[in-house]
Amino acid sequence: MSIFEELESEVRSYSRGWPVVFDRAQGSYLYDEDGKAYLDFFAGAGALNYGHNNPALKRALIDYIARDGVTHALDMFTVAKRDFLQTFKDKILAPRDLDYKVVFPGPGGANAVEAALKLARKVTGKEAVINFTNAFHGMTLGALSVTGNSMKRGGAGVPLVHATPMPYDNYFDGSIPDFLYFEKLLEDSGSGLNEPAAVIVEGVQGEGGINAARIEWLKALDDLCKKHGILLILDDVQMGCGRTGPFFSFEDAGIKPDIVCLSKSIGGYGIPMALTLIRPDLDVWEPGEHNGTFRGISPAFVTATEALRVYWSDDELEKSTKAKGERIAAAFEGIVEAYPDANLFAKGRGLARGIEFPNGDLAGKVCAAAFERGLLMETSGPDGEVMKLLPPLTLTDEELTKGLSIIDESIAAVLT
Amino acid sequence: MSIFEELESEVRSYSRGWPVVFDRAQGSYLYDEDGKAYLDFFAGAGALNYGHNNPALKRALIDYIARDGVTHALDMFTVAKRDFLQTFKDKILAPRDLDYKVVFPGPGGANAVEAALKLARKVTGKEAVINFTNAFHGMTLGALSVTGNSMKRGGAGVPLVHATPMPYDNYFDGSIPDFLYFEKLLEDSGSGLNEPAAVIVEGVQGEGGINAARIEWLKALDDLCKKHGILLILDDVQMGCGRTGPFFSFEDAGIKPDIVCLSKSIGGYGIPMALTLIRPDLDVWEPGEHNGTFRGISPAFVTATEALRVYWSDDELEKSTKAKGERIAAAFEGIVEAYPDANLFAKGRGLARGIEFPNGDLAGKVCAAAFERGLLMETSGPDGEVMKLLPPLTLTDEELTKGLSIIDESIAAVLT
Amino acid sequence: MSIFEELESEVRSYSRGWPVVFDRAQGSYLYDEDGKAYLDFFAGAGALNYGHNNPALKRALIDYIARDGVTHALDMFTVAKRDFLQTFKDKILAPRDLDYKVVFPGPGGANAVEAALKLARKVTGKEAVINFTNAFHGMTLGALSVTGNSMKRGGAGVPLVHATPMPYDNYFDGSIPDFLYFEKLLEDSGSGLNEPAAVIVEGVQGEGGINAARIEWLKALDDLCKKHGILLILDDVQMGCGRTGPFFSFEDAGIKPDIVCLSKSIGGYGIPMALTLIRPDLDVWEPGEHNGTFRGISPAFVTATEALRVYWSDDELEKSTKAKGERIAAAFEGIVEAYPDANLFAKGRGLARGIEFPNGDLAGKVCAAAFERGLLMETSGPDGEVMKLLPPLTLTDEELTKGLSIIDESIAAVLT
Amino acid sequence: MSIFEELESEVRSYSRGWPVVFDRAQGSYLYDEDGKAYLDFFAGAGALNYGHNNPALKRALIDYIARDGVTHALDMFTVAKRDFLQTFKDKILAPRDLDYKVVFPGPGGANAVEAALKLARKVTGKEAVINFTNAFHGMTLGALSVTGNSMKRGGAGVPLVHATPMPYDNYFDGSIPDFLYFEKLLEDSGSGLNEPAAVIVEGVQGEGGINAARIEWLKALDDLCKKHGILLILDDVQMGCGRTGPFFSFEDAGIKPDIVCLSKSIGGYGIPMALTLIRPDLDVWEPGEHNGTFRGISPAFVTATEALRVYWSDDELEKSTKAKGERIAAAFEGIVEAYPDANLFAKGRGLARGIEFPNGDLAGKVCAAAFERGLLMETSGPDGEVMKLLPPLTLTDEELTKGLSIIDESIAAVLT
Repeated sequence: MSIFEELESEVRSYSRGWPVVFDRAQGSYLYDEDGKAYLDFFAGAGALNYGHNNPALKRALIDYIARDGVTHALDMFTVAKRDFLQTFKDKILAPRDLDYKVVFPGPGGANAVEAALKLARKVTGKEAVINFTNAFHGMTLGALSVTGNSMKRGGAGVPLVHATPMPYDNYFDGSIPDFLYFEKLLEDSGSGLNEPAAVIVEGVQGEGGINAARIEWLKALDDLCKKHGILLILDDVQMGCGRTGPFFSFEDAGIKPDIVCLSKSIGGYGIPMALTLIRPDLDVWEPGEHNGTFRGISPAFVTATEALRVYWSDDELEKSTKAKGERIAAAFEGIVEAYPDANLFAKGRGLARGIEFPNGDLAGKVCAAAFERGLLMETSGPDGEVMKLLPPLTLTDEELTKGLSIIDESIAAVLT
Repeated sequence: MSIFEELESEVRSYSRGWPVVFDRAQGSYLYDEDGKAYLDFFAGAGALNYGHNNPALKRALIDYIARDGVTHALDMFTVAKRDFLQTFKDKILAPRDLDYKVVFPGPGGANAVEAALKLARKVTGKEAVINFTNAFHGMTLGALSVTGNSMKRGGAGVPLVHATPMPYDNYFDGSIPDFLYFEKLLEDSGSGLNEPAAVIVEGVQGEGGINAARIEWLKALDDLCKKHGILLILDDVQMGCGRTGPFFSFEDAGIKPDIVCLSKSIGGYGIPMALTLIRPDLDVWEPGEHNGTFRGISPAFVTATEALRVYWSDDELEKSTKAKGERIAAAFEGIVEAYPDANLFAKGRGLARGIEFPNGDLAGKVCAAAFERGLLMETSGPDGEVMKLLPPLTLTDEELTKGLSIIDESIAAVLT
Repeated sequence: MSIFEELESEVRSYSRGWPVVFDRAQGSYLYDEDGKAYLDFFAGAGALNYGHNNPALKRALIDYIARDGVTHALDMFTVAKRDFLQTFKDKILAPRDLDYKVVFPGPGGANAVEAALKLARKVTGKEAVINFTNAFHGMTLGALSVTGNSMKRGGAGVPLVHATPMPYDNYFDGSIPDFLYFEKLLEDSGSGLNEPAAVIVEGVQGEGGINAARIEWLKALDDLCKKHGILLILDDVQMGCGRTGPFFSFEDAGIKPDIVCLSKSIGGYGIPMALTLIRPDLDVWEPGEHNGTFRGISPAFVTATEALRVYWSDDELEKSTKAKGERIAAAFEGIVEAYPDANLFAKGRGLARGIEFPNGDLAGKVCAAAFERGLLMETSGPDGEVMKLLPPLTLTDEELTKGLSIIDESIAAVLT
Repeated sequence: MSIFEELESEVRSYSRGWPVVFDRAQGSYLYDEDGKAYLDFFAGAGALNYGHNNPALKRALIDYIARDGVTHALDMFTVAKRDFLQTFKDKILAPRDLDYKVVFPGPGGANAVEAALKLARKVTGKEAVINFTNAFHGMTLGALSVTGNSMKRGGAGVPLVHATPMPYDNYFDGSIPDFLYFEKLLEDSGSGLNEPAAVIVEGVQGEGGINAARIEWLKALDDLCKKHGILLILDDVQMGCGRTGPFFSFEDAGIKPDIVCLSKSIGGYGIPMALTLIRPDLDVWEPGEHNGTFRGISPAFVTATEALRVYWSDDELEKSTKAKGERIAAAFEGIVEAYPDANLFAKGRGLARGIEFPNGDLAGKVCAAAFERGLLMETSGPDGEVMKLLPPLTLTDEELTKGLSIIDESIAAVLT
């Protein structure tokens, strides 16, 4: 029995589908301890948009550590944080005409979501929140209450309250006008819906099955929130930092959410970091009213800053992401057409892509077949029925070609 | 206006008391950007037990990064995780005859607490939890509900439920038998207390005011829990990893809690990492029932492993911590005696030490005076009335001498 | 200032629209202290289906009191309760092939609902309940949580949780397939809907605006509940006891709800009484697990029994109710047609009838005009936009003619 | 099988201990259908302070019904309500210098409590409520959440939240200063106690085991509430209307609670009626924000008014209640002394009296023995360990003598 089986809780999951011991990683590849290479189309569930151990970031990181830059600094002022804030303003906020204030809510995405929910409730004096079907926002109690997956919700051990799910875009395959139910409940003073403090939404639902909301749906949601005085929280933890093309997943919709959650790839190198961006007039916290130990991890600030400089000084990455995304979309449409009886659907936006299978069993088999062929992919969706692609944004065309080829083979192996 | 004031939320707190920009750090010292040195008796709120940028850990960390060891690995198997698990078993669990299974609950202490609460509720089918007065367990909704501070609780924006506070040790200055109220409520079927799934407790309350529970109190709490079939969760996030002397704060009590939360110094170098240790028979999770992006940060595993090897292969650190703790205790008793009218109290265990002042204003002034003299200390307690010391366990005798001397001066400056 | 204004809380409401002091009542009439008669088309909000001080019931009541029949008996066995139970079985349950067990949950409808919700949750081990838009189930905390009206919900002072509202029949004017949203949320394991213990529904929503669910909608709801293992609670507090024609409002749908709530007219004479009818296999209470002081009010049992004997030994009342209902429906359709630009809608079933006005102001004015003319009617609906008729089922054709005539005049006075 | 066993839910309880069918009742006696008389020392759980079918009240009631006085009137103005309000002001409020406004919250005590809790939360904007160990306030969700009995709480099917139990007077047999824990938690901003909107308390706990709070304890509680801005809700549902001597159980303490709940004997004859009395400045309800069908049951107003006139125009009843209470107290002390090894305790105030046995089994056997001898008594307390006496306040000295004699015999039969 390995030390993993001996000591690690049964809650472990990814290691079950990929039962090898990884050692090194570079760019789009992970290597197991025997040196076997795996093309990584999962990229840390979206935490590694710039690839594994990106050389530019690595250099900055090692330099910082080598010169004894402060590592852990709570929420003190540091040179590393100053550089990050200035760069984030210059490269991200200012060019997009955004004037958010920045909360460092803790190390991970769930902290960003918890801070967002707390603030929205404090500002409005209301408890209720609207979330969407198949949302994923995290595993802590507040974040879990707005998450859809019933197995994960069941883990809470207390009734999850204060959230009411509304249908995400396309939940009824376009047969129902957008927000019909939501708006009627809001406008009917007898509906029984508790008046919501906020709506929390993902631009594209990753864990929920690579469901990409249409631009016009996001716009209409923003309008609805404004009309009814509801705060709009955009959880861009997985889809931000360029995953769909632009830095924020909501940019193409031309909206400015009241609160934005970032984590995963914001640190750039895979070291924990998270941000909650808030409209300046919402900044009503008391000093220390929300705090935490891991809010000032300078190595993450250093790699975050470097990533912004390297990848967000121009629109090269955005264009490349969209172009590669289109390549995958075309390839997936081809697959769908190649198996007309298989009931497949291609889904996604930018480099968040998926193929929906009729059930989780098939999707799982395809991922297993890909693993055997040296490609890491995961399933998502309520029943694991979607084969999900979240490759590094920095992958090369050759790597993409190779990955698509393995996917072709794997699907063929399973479906034929 | 600095970029901090321009962009960072008003929720920032430590930077208000220490309004300089820190740049580098080594051992027991932080250096601001002008090169001024500050002796750090706060140590990342307990996250830097081995000092800043500890050379042994730094070497291992740079080596690992340089050789492109995988950085971010979700909960996949990795060489770095294997080394950590094996070392944790060899250096910590086995010598203490503990057979916990290890959950990687997410990057920070709040994740460790959330996982503990979720599991305790799932296992028992009960929702209620007993916490203690002046407890601190974190800022996410589940963790916040068992935290005492009313300002922080107010930040939740929803009523915090499912927790009932009981008096921590010495809450009534010894005038009331331990657990009198708690036990009566448990035994009286008409008491109105919801039957608890678990008790969550800190061995020493840091944020609550450096309140050190007596060994016999912890023992009696453990007995009470066993007698009534209540799970005992020991939150050792701040007081574990040697802060009170032994690796776990509960060791001297000879108890084996059902669930233990670790974070802060477990990573060794200040990079986010957390563990929830659980009694093997409580390992009833479904795969993936609790998950998260930042559960496999290999750089933290590497420094964690190295820290265990260097500091926990023998009992040198434990002895040294106790000895230095006694030095501080003696010094503090001297201070208390030197100001007989000032109503001071010396508190703490190991290298978690404090002096309680009559109010938060005085304690705050002492910390400010110390900062002017180049020493970083914080206050804690419900009204910030306790001057709190959490120096690196690795500080030298000279550093301790210097720090105590600054404290002497600072108190004199304020009280005389 | 009257003693009412001096002593009674501002929460009083009906007395504001009808500012006279009533003294006597008989049949379909209330008389104020000056002897002025008011035709009562409100009938105690449905509590007086057999009219005021019904002579047959009055005789039985006075006889019982005169002979010192036990008045208050908690849940002891009494002759009066035995007669009621036997009669309820013979006249109501047995002829309809229903085998419910009877809970005496307390004196009013809210108690019947609270008992239903408690039992449904106990039996299923689930907390969540589905209610419907514009539902009304009562003012106690459990009942209020499944009630729609936002003003009344706001009175709770705590967040109302564990309930999710679904669209009642015709909520989207038939444009959306029935239960589309509800069923999708149930079948999607990622929807975020907490698995419900029960659905609670009214056959016709009275307070919600005289919304009559179609027979096929109720049937389909019953099917949906059975398919998903959800208990169906039919709240017949206002619409039971013949209000819609048959004794239970759900009879025409041919369904047998798992739990039925009765109150208001079950006592027959306006004395508080309530029943919760439960499927025999759901009878899992411990003795005394639900109790209360006013569960055995024998005068109510006596009049209840007499009402069942007099009115439910044959189908005369049912037929008469349906016939009179049709008369009102026809009259109301005539009114709707007479004011083609006024945007009126006729609503209802049996002797629960209404006309929906474009807003609450108009409906209120019509009721005020009717009051001036000696007719008592109330508004309902979320904005009070529905003129509501709940006349005694025993009203004569002449009284109905007179009432309809006053309504004609009142509407004319307001609309022309 | 009787119709009771066939149709009535297993939740029935009193009928289990007294398995006869009662028919008539007069004064202190109930008669079963065979004419056997039972001396009633339970008096409708305190709902029949003036005895069964009190002749003066009966006369007024029959007169009112005979003359077709309005029976059911929602919250309309009626002559019967006016008489009641005026009489309540003249006989009860004015002489005691109380200026409460009157809410008619619904038919029963639980409605009075629900209205009190709703109002307290609305006024203060806080959710939390402090209740006391072994409290009983009712079975609806809001009232149940502040009730102590674990079996009854378990019936809720949802976690009962927003209430924290504090020790009632004498919970630790006088060994602990009053309110030590409560006051410390209130004053410590780090205690984790949610700031309470209100305290809810009974002057004497009936269901909880005939626990009579000392006058000075009630006074101190009132002081504590005033000091901390907490509303004091006095639930006098069972102990009001003279049960302890004065009309309100709190009169001897010289306090004026912010909110008072009355029900049970307020109607006088056992017909459902309840009042919530509120400090005038707390009367912030919107019209109709709290409502209900059974808030204007005129027969209850009529008997309530008559009872006030007959029994509360002078202090005869109060004196007699205290005198009879002292007789019982003396008799019970004699019993306690007569069985020095039996570990008995005499408890109570006024005509709420009890003897605590070492366990519920013994107390139950004594009540069973008394039933065999023609005396109705019940047990109370968390384990049913208290033999409870709530005789009609109007019982004669002879009846009391007879009852005490049966109690003597019954205890002797069980203990010897």
